[in-house]
Amino acid sequence: MTDIKATLLAQHIETPSWAYGNSGTRFKVFAQKGVPRDPYEKLADAAQVHAYTGIAPTVALHIPWDKVDDYADLARHARELGVGIGAINSNVFQDDDYMLGSVTHPSGRVRRKATDHLLECVDIMDATGSDTLKLWFSDGINYPGQDDIRARQDRLAESLAEVYDRLGGGQRFLLEYKLFEPAFYATDVPDWGTAYAHCVKLGPKAQVVVDTGHHAPGVNIEFIVAFLLREGKLGGFDFNSRFYADDDLMVGAADPFQLFRIMYEVVRGGGLDAGTGVAFMLDQCHNIEPKIPGQIRSVMNVQEATAKALLVDREALAAAQAEGDVLGANAVFMDAYNTDVRPLLAELREERGLAPDPMAAYAKSGYFEKIAAERVGGQQAGWGA
Amino acid sequence: MTDIKATLLAQHIETPSWAYGNSGTRFKVFAQKGVPRDPYEKLADAAQVHAYTGIAPTVALHIPWDKVDDYADLARHARELGVGIGAINSNVFQDDDYMLGSVTHPSGRVRRKATDHLLECVDIMDATGSDTLKLWFSDGINYPGQDDIRARQDRLAESLAEVYDRLGGGQRFLLEYKLFEPAFYATDVPDWGTAYAHCVKLGPKAQVVVDTGHHAPGVNIEFIVAFLLREGKLGGFDFNSRFYADDDLMVGAADPFQLFRIMYEVVRGGGLDAGTGVAFMLDQCHNIEPKIPGQIRSVMNVQEATAKALLVDREALAAAQAEGDVLGANAVFMDAYNTDVRPLLAELREERGLAPDPMAAYAKSGYFEKIAAERVGGQQAGWGA
Amino acid sequence: MTDIKATLLAQHIETPSWAYGNSGTRFKVFAQKGVPRDPYEKLADAAQVHAYTGIAPTVALHIPWDKVDDYADLARHARELGVGIGAINSNVFQDDDYMLGSVTHPSGRVRRKATDHLLECVDIMDATGSDTLKLWFSDGINYPGQDDIRARQDRLAESLAEVYDRLGGGQRFLLEYKLFEPAFYATDVPDWGTAYAHCVKLGPKAQVVVDTGHHAPGVNIEFIVAFLLREGKLGGFDFNSRFYADDDLMVGAADPFQLFRIMYEVVRGGGLDAGTGVAFMLDQCHNIEPKIPGQIRSVMNVQEATAKALLVDREALAAAQAEGDVLGANAVFMDAYNTDVRPLLAELREERGLAPDPMAAYAKSGYFEKIAAERVGGQQAGWGA
Amino acid sequence: MTDIKATLLAQHIETPSWAYGNSGTRFKVFAQKGVPRDPYEKLADAAQVHAYTGIAPTVALHIPWDKVDDYADLARHARELGVGIGAINSNVFQDDDYMLGSVTHPSGRVRRKATDHLLECVDIMDATGSDTLKLWFSDGINYPGQDDIRARQDRLAESLAEVYDRLGGGQRFLLEYKLFEPAFYATDVPDWGTAYAHCVKLGPKAQVVVDTGHHAPGVNIEFIVAFLLREGKLGGFDFNSRFYADDDLMVGAADPFQLFRIMYEVVRGGGLDAGTGVAFMLDQCHNIEPKIPGQIRSVMNVQEATAKALLVDREALAAAQAEGDVLGANAVFMDAYNTDVRPLLAELREERGLAPDPMAAYAKSGYFEKIAAERVGGQQAGWGA
Repeated sequence: MTDIKATLLAQHIETPSWAYGNSGTRFKVFAQKGVPRDPYEKLADAAQVHAYTGIAPTVALHIPWDKVDDYADLARHARELGVGIGAINSNVFQDDDYMLGSVTHPSGRVRRKATDHLLECVDIMDATGSDTLKLWFSDGINYPGQDDIRARQDRLAESLAEVYDRLGGGQRFLLEYKLFEPAFYATDVPDWGTAYAHCVKLGPKAQVVVDTGHHAPGVNIEFIVAFLLREGKLGGFDFNSRFYADDDLMVGAADPFQLFRIMYEVVRGGGLDAGTGVAFMLDQCHNIEPKIPGQIRSVMNVQEATAKALLVDREALAAAQAEGDVLGANAVFMDAYNTDVRPLLAELREERGLAPDPMAAYAKSGYFEKIAAERVGGQQAGWGA
Repeated sequence: MTDIKATLLAQHIETPSWAYGNSGTRFKVFAQKGVPRDPYEKLADAAQVHAYTGIAPTVALHIPWDKVDDYADLARHARELGVGIGAINSNVFQDDDYMLGSVTHPSGRVRRKATDHLLECVDIMDATGSDTLKLWFSDGINYPGQDDIRARQDRLAESLAEVYDRLGGGQRFLLEYKLFEPAFYATDVPDWGTAYAHCVKLGPKAQVVVDTGHHAPGVNIEFIVAFLLREGKLGGFDFNSRFYADDDLMVGAADPFQLFRIMYEVVRGGGLDAGTGVAFMLDQCHNIEPKIPGQIRSVMNVQEATAKALLVDREALAAAQAEGDVLGANAVFMDAYNTDVRPLLAELREERGLAPDPMAAYAKSGYFEKIAAERVGGQQAGWGA
Repeated sequence: MTDIKATLLAQHIETPSWAYGNSGTRFKVFAQKGVPRDPYEKLADAAQVHAYTGIAPTVALHIPWDKVDDYADLARHARELGVGIGAINSNVFQDDDYMLGSVTHPSGRVRRKATDHLLECVDIMDATGSDTLKLWFSDGINYPGQDDIRARQDRLAESLAEVYDRLGGGQRFLLEYKLFEPAFYATDVPDWGTAYAHCVKLGPKAQVVVDTGHHAPGVNIEFIVAFLLREGKLGGFDFNSRFYADDDLMVGAADPFQLFRIMYEVVRGGGLDAGTGVAFMLDQCHNIEPKIPGQIRSVMNVQEATAKALLVDREALAAAQAEGDVLGANAVFMDAYNTDVRPLLAELREERGLAPDPMAAYAKSGYFEKIAAERVGGQQAGWGA
Repeated sequence: MTDIKATLLAQHIETPSWAYGNSGTRFKVFAQKGVPRDPYEKLADAAQVHAYTGIAPTVALHIPWDKVDDYADLARHARELGVGIGAINSNVFQDDDYMLGSVTHPSGRVRRKATDHLLECVDIMDATGSDTLKLWFSDGINYPGQDDIRARQDRLAESLAEVYDRLGGGQRFLLEYKLFEPAFYATDVPDWGTAYAHCVKLGPKAQVVVDTGHHAPGVNIEFIVAFLLREGKLGGFDFNSRFYADDDLMVGAADPFQLFRIMYEVVRGGGLDAGTGVAFMLDQCHNIEPKIPGQIRSVMNVQEATAKALLVDREALAAAQAEGDVLGANAVFMDAYNTDVRPLLAELREERGLAPDPMAAYAKSGYFEKIAAERVGGQQAGWGA
């Protein structure tokens, strides 16, 4: 149990700056009170999540949504709040030029512009001390014949190679895949196989990131996690949950058992060991629930799943597996899942000087009332700003 | 063949005013040149689609996107352009009050507001002469436990009953169902069964509308069409196509064989007969392709599928079916599908005094260049306006 | 808590005779040791499940797999073992005549034969005292055009009406729906809406049965449960679980959170109340795990989900829902799910004089060793016998 | 057009010996008249398919279903019938030992047995002159925790390496992937990425085979085809079609447009060029339709899709794509698809001395009546024999 507690204390979950802004569906973005107007306010909110959970010490940025004049100053601001800058997320999907693609666009001019943006993100990594670049390409086509699927792969490879070469010593990029949306017929990086194949060719600084909402129905995500870990190509997670498509609900909200199975494969594959570099990031929206408690709940959900995964009696499991004892092995696995780990985690928090119930503690803190009163006027942050 | 031509000439496909405005995904709406700024300009564009296809004589409105001070004037404007006002589409998903639902919202105040909007739509039907109200509810919940699934049905039933009672003599409403989006856990009208059950209780003026993009993967849409026609409850279609979720691509673009099978069941069930009241409406977006030719192509796709469906040798089919001749029956069916009906439709257009190739004729007309030059300034129409 | 315990004690889960026989996929049926050779031995095995769980007092039969000369004798045998005969399941999919359908077959002769089988099942209900007939039709077509979708509905309605009329006073039938398999293009009762529409027309003795493995990906099953309960048309469940299609795994094994959500809607809708007639039946296979413990585990999984559903603090939930407190309502819901109910259920069993751990108690009993030694020779039961 | 005809004449589609035997679902295998009793009779039936289509000159074997004492004699028999032996398909899913896996089984004894079978298949390749081994592993687990996902990859890699090393100079193996069935929780080779990663490590004699029915809903198969061709790792196809899962219906029957898109990517990627080694194989069942005409129809469906793919005006397409003309590019693509190629193919057949309509010619030939009369008694071939 001491080991489990130590591992849980060492776990580090990154929250995304955009989770604190407004978000929604194509039908409507509902504005909420107290939403940050700039990256400084986003970091302040993220610091609250860390303050109550104790395991969310870094914040991912999204460029250009989090563009500032002085990144060193932003990093300093973060440090003062007790958090640090995490991964830099590129954005090559919101400029009018990208209607038909970014790095895979038929036009060389657009591709140049997109790749330049990616290189700029590496500059920002240098300025902020971030070691991770996250690449998601919305590139794809809506109609059969619209563009050449294969030529787009050539263009993608070319751009990735240029960015890869620009990476500094301690830097890496994570390539994200997604089945569909916003492209609806063919996506240029639709699955882990595509991301993996590109990353293998590029080298060790290129790894795959698994967004838990980016798969076809029925795809076994923990298999992918196990496979990528075995290959040394699992760079990290973008956690969220979904019932249907890429719903971006709070991680663990739709299928907590799946989250447990994923975390078990992480544990099994050594992904929680020091130095493996598996990044545990949230990438989700809070369309209708309040943002900060939404993030706190999400961090707690990952932590609970991790605790359960660590509780699996691996010796008993291995024995049952070796004997081909189907029900016995499954029972060992389910025993851990069915355990209520909330008392253990409350204890852990108290040992660390935190309130045992982060949700209640945040609610009582008055922080929301404060930002709701103070953050009046200005342009609330959202996906478009 | 004469019969087939007559049936094709009588077919009537309604285009939606919102197809002429900008649209997109939650990630980005790409603006296009020449997009209408108001309902009058939308009608002008819709009239082009009818001018070149000859079978798109009505236009659906969306309230409040198409709100005007004088609906009689709008209807007159439409008539002058050679088109008419079709279905009135309600919108209870874009007001800030509707974050947690409209007619199923826990708050009575919000429900009242939503129902009042629906009643206002009936007023607009009266003013424009429209006989059809289309009801789509984005209502639902994102998280298990968020609200009471059953109580929401009670509230839905109550609102529907009030609107039903308000309908005038020649009026009806069509209830639309949708699996998910924007609600991601439970949708209040998720499937045809739910819509059907409510409509049966309400009476003959309530019918189901089938949006071809609103089903779970693998659902057989033509079965639903056949079933609803058999029950006298098929009010019409919202046509579009999809590879994954509710992609809202051009109808027939993703699975033309499915469209043919749907149209075959319509033919089989008498849905093209005069007086059945099955409305053939488009409900789709043109995120990256130009709007007017996107609509022309869509209308042509429905027409081609209809022509093929009419070409099925039903006598031969029935004979093969009765004998249990699996391959023979399938072959009769596929013979019609594999026929190239484009020459027949070109001929039909020419007999009617239209250009044989609507796409080419529109492209040559200079209309796009004209609106691109004229429609400068102002606020382009989109889902939000 | 007293109420909860009383409700749990009153719950009754029916196991299916075919779960004790061999089963498999189209690729292979793996035989297991000790598998019953006849209905008498199946009942003996089912009695074991009841002996250790205390809540599985009835056994569903499948005709003709469980055909015997003297049903009264079989029922007597069951009573002696401490169990009773539950639902009678018809089988109109394994006779060579049914290749193209049973009650929807194009040939009147085959339809007559199929309907006669259903009527024979009612005779067996009379003979065994069973009050429930379960109807599943594998009927459907593999290829577009193969048969007339609509005419098949007419034939289905005709057969159902004849069976309905034959039902005695205290008898009912449950109509099962299934998305696909063994028919691969169009299934004649593919979804709950189809089953519901037929049942509504037939009357109160016809109800819908929800097999948890028979839906398209992403379909919200608890919504259907809530809806059918509201309509008074939920006849019962065929429980099992699945990751992909109709995998027929142990209920609760693939998505225990979904099972909890389903049971919550049952509780919410009064489906556990005395006299509602909602039947909780297992319908699953044990292709690779041993049969009896597979059934014990499954019964326990339903019981655990039921216990959690009963633990939901409905007053707190209603309050949070009324306030539109998304996170609060979800938290109340998840609190119940995250509770480890195994100690409560162990206590309950001990109060009833049962061993606290049914799996361990069965394993220690020596029953498996006994049947493995005794049941040698003869033809093991399976789907085909 | 001359080029197109030449390419079509050179196309070669392999039929599988097991398509001529009985098949079915887990619910029922319906026996048909005239079904072969041994591999010799299967080859005779396959020769009929080639006789009427002219493009099906080889037949895949399945071991042990097609085990014979003298493979040289079987190969000679094939040559006399005008056909040759194609790929050798291994079977490590039907022995009782394989209940929990074959090459990934926890037990070393079972793994040895399974690998030995694969090596035996290479012996049969030597004996028959076959140059292709097809490997499909049904291996996987049904329940979370049942076995160690990662260890199973280690075992898989070990077995594949041993088989790879045994391959002779002109020999290769094709590794097949499948999402699920018969394993229902985690499959050891579930997707193209897994197969690809193993093949890349093994070397040039290991390639991926794409079975068109083995993907999750919504997966874009033509993307995978384009990607694997670009990587030089597309070994071939197992063609069939599906509406839901792995339905194994006739290729082109469920989504002919998808088949066209796949064949377009094959053409685009040079997969029809001489020497690329892309194998076009059928792998499907005829559960309810007659076998030989089912195969003829399937071969014709692939041919029609290929003809349409070859008709795409690639110059016009490239021009529209380069201009970002979404509708224009799609229109060029659809023009080819909408063309009725049946007259062209009839002409082609006549030029080659074949009947223009293979289905009609076969039906008239009397072959079916002959085998139905002659093949009486004995054990009909099926998946189990």
